[in-house]
Amino acid sequence: MGHSQPPLSLRPSSRDEFLRLDADDPLASIREHFDLPPRLIYLDGNSLGAMPREARNRLSEATSQWAHGLISSWNDAGWAEAPTRVGDKIGRLLGALPSEVVLGDTTSVNLFKALNAALSLHGGGVILTDEQNFPTDLYITEAVAKKRDVQLRRVPRNQLGDAIQHGVAVVTATHVDYRTGHMLDMRELTKAAHDAGALFVWDLCHSAGAVPLDLNGAEVDLAVGCTYKFLNGGPGSPAYIFAARRLHGDLNNPIPGWFGHDHPFEFDSGYTPAPDARRFLTGTPAILSVAALEAAIDLWLTVDIALVRSKSLVLADLLIDQVRRQCEGFGLELASPEEPATRGSQVSFKHPNAYGLVRALAEVGVVGDHRPPDIARFGLTPLYTRHVDMWDAAEKLSEVLRQRTYLAPRFAAKVGVP
Amino acid sequence: MGHSQPPLSLRPSSRDEFLRLDADDPLASIREHFDLPPRLIYLDGNSLGAMPREARNRLSEATSQWAHGLISSWNDAGWAEAPTRVGDKIGRLLGALPSEVVLGDTTSVNLFKALNAALSLHGGGVILTDEQNFPTDLYITEAVAKKRDVQLRRVPRNQLGDAIQHGVAVVTATHVDYRTGHMLDMRELTKAAHDAGALFVWDLCHSAGAVPLDLNGAEVDLAVGCTYKFLNGGPGSPAYIFAARRLHGDLNNPIPGWFGHDHPFEFDSGYTPAPDARRFLTGTPAILSVAALEAAIDLWLTVDIALVRSKSLVLADLLIDQVRRQCEGFGLELASPEEPATRGSQVSFKHPNAYGLVRALAEVGVVGDHRPPDIARFGLTPLYTRHVDMWDAAEKLSEVLRQRTYLAPRFAAKVGVP
Repeated sequence: MGHSQPPLSLRPSSRDEFLRLDADDPLASIREHFDLPPRLIYLDGNSLGAMPREARNRLSEATSQWAHGLISSWNDAGWAEAPTRVGDKIGRLLGALPSEVVLGDTTSVNLFKALNAALSLHGGGVILTDEQNFPTDLYITEAVAKKRDVQLRRVPRNQLGDAIQHGVAVVTATHVDYRTGHMLDMRELTKAAHDAGALFVWDLCHSAGAVPLDLNGAEVDLAVGCTYKFLNGGPGSPAYIFAARRLHGDLNNPIPGWFGHDHPFEFDSGYTPAPDARRFLTGTPAILSVAALEAAIDLWLTVDIALVRSKSLVLADLLIDQVRRQCEGFGLELASPEEPATRGSQVSFKHPNAYGLVRALAEVGVVGDHRPPDIARFGLTPLYTRHVDMWDAAEKLSEVLRQRTYLAPRFAAKVGVP
Repeated sequence: MGHSQPPLSLRPSSRDEFLRLDADDPLASIREHFDLPPRLIYLDGNSLGAMPREARNRLSEATSQWAHGLISSWNDAGWAEAPTRVGDKIGRLLGALPSEVVLGDTTSVNLFKALNAALSLHGGGVILTDEQNFPTDLYITEAVAKKRDVQLRRVPRNQLGDAIQHGVAVVTATHVDYRTGHMLDMRELTKAAHDAGALFVWDLCHSAGAVPLDLNGAEVDLAVGCTYKFLNGGPGSPAYIFAARRLHGDLNNPIPGWFGHDHPFEFDSGYTPAPDARRFLTGTPAILSVAALEAAIDLWLTVDIALVRSKSLVLADLLIDQVRRQCEGFGLELASPEEPATRGSQVSFKHPNAYGLVRALAEVGVVGDHRPPDIARFGLTPLYTRHVDMWDAAEKLSEVLRQRTYLAPRFAAKVGVP
């Protein structure tokens, strides 16, 4: 356990003590803004965030705008500005300036755009990435390298810093690893890339809403991320792309569609890119999905991310501690970093039967997630995760391990989800 | 007027006669499935289709799946299959086989994918397109040609057929022109492309739900289209891409994301494309937008497109006839083809003050659309457009022209919408 944590003997050791932590939690009331199944312990908000109640109202508004305002809602209801308006709001969570973030497409498509833009700006050279990067990032990175005829170098995550050398054009990595929750040092690695003459494209899927971010403080060049995990935007809600203001004029969108045009509704036959990050937009935004997402982002803007981070670290510490106390000797091994400073907002354990374990846990009301081959991961989403959930989750995990229900034949077939 | 129309003297010439046409209309009851402002004459369903009432129910279902099913809804509520399930349903409207159409991304992104896939399959050569193609198509086509270092040839729409010569690798055009409604001969031009050794990528944005389509009958290679116009999928609802089965194994998605992987949820670090059109998927689908869209497509599947086309042609004939009768001498010129066989489901007029005209008409309850520089266009959407709307629209247009309200200063500023 990291040096910043209290010694084991001072940690709460009864369910009542966990309940008292919730009673004192300044974020506790935020949970009321979510529509959650009452008895479920949901530790998969890093895969799909819970639904803010306000999302339903926003969808209802958006359908009324569609039905009654029809085409005029593109102007009158602010639909046309949604990608920049919501982008700017997300930017406030990322440490970005206005016009540096736009909402649209998916993380994969945005990564494709960012990598191509970075390569074109740099002029060519090696693309470097973490070989444990999220699969879709690896597919996109490989396709871009192949099409652009540049070398792709994939190195172990812990060797990424050392591999940033002269000759590298673009580095791309996921800030917080989806399996272990390991968090890279964004500031240090971005600086290393710049020192080597390279650009860094960050994937923030497991960072935004999970840890404090300061993209401009870290002098980040380009970043992409989804909005349906910690940000609670809804299933498949649109992704975002960040481009640092200092680079705006020099970045080209490889998929230049009309929403990235400086004046999309003049229907010019020639393309003139918007002057800022809006040039990374392509097609028409999926307004209904945006409407639900905006409810989630508006809720986020009422929250102090520093409090979220403190609570996340406490939750992680409590869960690790309780699992150690209650589940010792059952083959669980902490897969997340011990050191809180290098951990995002999840706790992962290795177990030879991780898949069965996660499924068996779900049957007793604790939803975590399995990632191949042997990771059981538990997302900590302080907006709606309670301290007592850590106690209860560890207890249920202990039961499942003791009763060996995870070995049941029905858990033999693997069925994954995004 | 085309030869298939009755002579002028036999056309209905009173509002009552138009109402009788509605009383006899086999599609009349479909209008009840839409939530429309009661007194509005909405002739802009070729920009944003009206809202099927069922869309609200589907969104309500989807939010419940999100809130209460949470992550398990990716499997249990069929979210993960949505791109192929809804794609197949759309395929039935296009004359496609199962697994030939998938839903996802935007038309612009899908066009980017289709053009790159076609170029890679062909091995290089000229890209040919219509210089009046929709702007975003032109931007994407130009960007692809530049990046792939192939020549781009833009010719007038009426010379497209002649320009399909040896040396052309890919032809791309919008089947029904967004300004005039002019419809190209899909079968003939696709054959011309094949005879020249080229592939044809069709944009069906103004065709699907507007005219009967038989992609396989016409031996189409690749096609893309949006779902928010005639298909009524909602603002910015996801687009689709069609790839002919005979080409599946040879087509590469230039943006290969995890949803196009053969087994996305096994989290392989290497990319293996799905065997069929699913390989054109990239990122996570925007489920809430898909939910509303699926309601619209399910309604479409109850409708005979031949009836829709017949009614569309009658509506167009009535509108053209009434405008000629009521608005003669006011500088309106038919911009759509006289010949119904070469016209989609809209009627456009040229007028020097087209923008003001459309705005002034909207103020008196008739919503059409302006397209620069001088086009006033009126979309005909037989699922909810009535015959009597043609009478009323022509009458309002005549009033606006006679009273010259379209010259009001408030109509001087141009504000466009998608």
